[in-house]
Amino acid sequence: MSRKSKGSKGKAVVLLSGGLDSATTLYLAKAKGYRCHCLILEYAQRHRREVKAAEKIARTAGCPWEKVRLRFPWKGSALTDRSVGVPMDRPESRLSKEIPPTYVPARNTVFLSMAAGFAEAIGARTIFIGANAVDFSGYPDCRPSYYRAFQRAVRLGTRAGMQGEPIRIETPLIRMTKSQIIRLGTRLGVPYRITWSCYMGKAVPCGRCDSCFLRRKGFQEAGVPDPAILS
Amino acid sequence: MSRKSKGSKGKAVVLLSGGLDSATTLYLAKAKGYRCHCLILEYAQRHRREVKAAEKIARTAGCPWEKVRLRFPWKGSALTDRSVGVPMDRPESRLSKEIPPTYVPARNTVFLSMAAGFAEAIGARTIFIGANAVDFSGYPDCRPSYYRAFQRAVRLGTRAGMQGEPIRIETPLIRMTKSQIIRLGTRLGVPYRITWSCYMGKAVPCGRCDSCFLRRKGFQEAGVPDPAILS
Repeated sequence: MSRKSKGSKGKAVVLLSGGLDSATTLYLAKAKGYRCHCLILEYAQRHRREVKAAEKIARTAGCPWEKVRLRFPWKGSALTDRSVGVPMDRPESRLSKEIPPTYVPARNTVFLSMAAGFAEAIGARTIFIGANAVDFSGYPDCRPSYYRAFQRAVRLGTRAGMQGEPIRIETPLIRMTKSQIIRLGTRLGVPYRITWSCYMGKAVPCGRCDSCFLRRKGFQEAGVPDPAILS
Repeated sequence: MSRKSKGSKGKAVVLLSGGLDSATTLYLAKAKGYRCHCLILEYAQRHRREVKAAEKIARTAGCPWEKVRLRFPWKGSALTDRSVGVPMDRPESRLSKEIPPTYVPARNTVFLSMAAGFAEAIGARTIFIGANAVDFSGYPDCRPSYYRAFQRAVRLGTRAGMQGEPIRIETPLIRMTKSQIIRLGTRLGVPYRITWSCYMGKAVPCGRCDSCFLRRKGFQEAGVPDPAILS
């Protein structure tokens, strides 16, 4: 059986944020033959553009999605708390060395735990998350060691794991640079035009936050025009 | 400094369900000197009696609480899905040997991850959960090995852990029988009268579900009358 034959790998839950990493992850999981169920988490983001982008990506990929609304008191992060400013025009040298103000406490742990509950409920045994340790190495919950530890906790703490069918966590982009991700996604036909990366919720991307910076740099290095900018 | 002096241990997040185990855990954490912040999670429970009981317990204990509403698609569990029946009159021999239909996929993982996010956001470094491996040994997410693994994941995946101030997970009741818990709680002044254990949401406890059975047995073995029945 071909590794890429559709439907051969069973169900997977894909955490979809609306950004380009998770969109690439979804298309990669599909290409590997998983029947993907997207999980879109709507928390106290500064804006809903990301959520709308995520829905559009799932629809475009032809995958069912579940949107979970979470009213969570995530204070102190620039992504969820308007009293904390989103950093602008940060020099590249600082991006990977410190935990940025956009860190949301235990966010990926919350997301993965929900993905684990959803996966177990629908009979999926794989979770895909587009975490990346290269560009955002300042985030503790983007490190490979964290994912291994979390996978172990989920194996011990679920019926699936207890019954010998543990849920695996796949982080296929974790060691890739943004330009490698974009080259891969371009081959896979990821609709980058409808992805949203900017931390701000304006009509057009600000071009100055860390996320806009890394996106622009990634497309430049990949030698591919950013279709979201062109359109 | 006395181990029990109030305020000596810093902030803690206590997961409060409304049942007697979590209420006992809260009073124990208070007695140990923690400044407790209760986290009450309102998910797709069959009924809201538990949530109301949890609020009342936090108020009685004089602790602030945060209630988080989570609309989560937890299908297939008797606690969240009305199409699955709550088992009644199960023989005691079966209670600890199999995963019951009241198992909610990865529930404690979801709860703990939110507690971790909340703890980090408010500067707490301890999470208390009233998990118990004796009466409900059928639940995978009540085993000590699971808590150790989860604590490790949280240490690796949070800023607090990265900065050398990891969040600890305390499960003080995990190896206690229900009667031991009730004896301890009685000494601590836990208001058992306002706790709610029954899986059903009727005006009075059904007396026949696993939870009612274990509560009755616990009070009988502790030689203490159940104040919720008397009142």
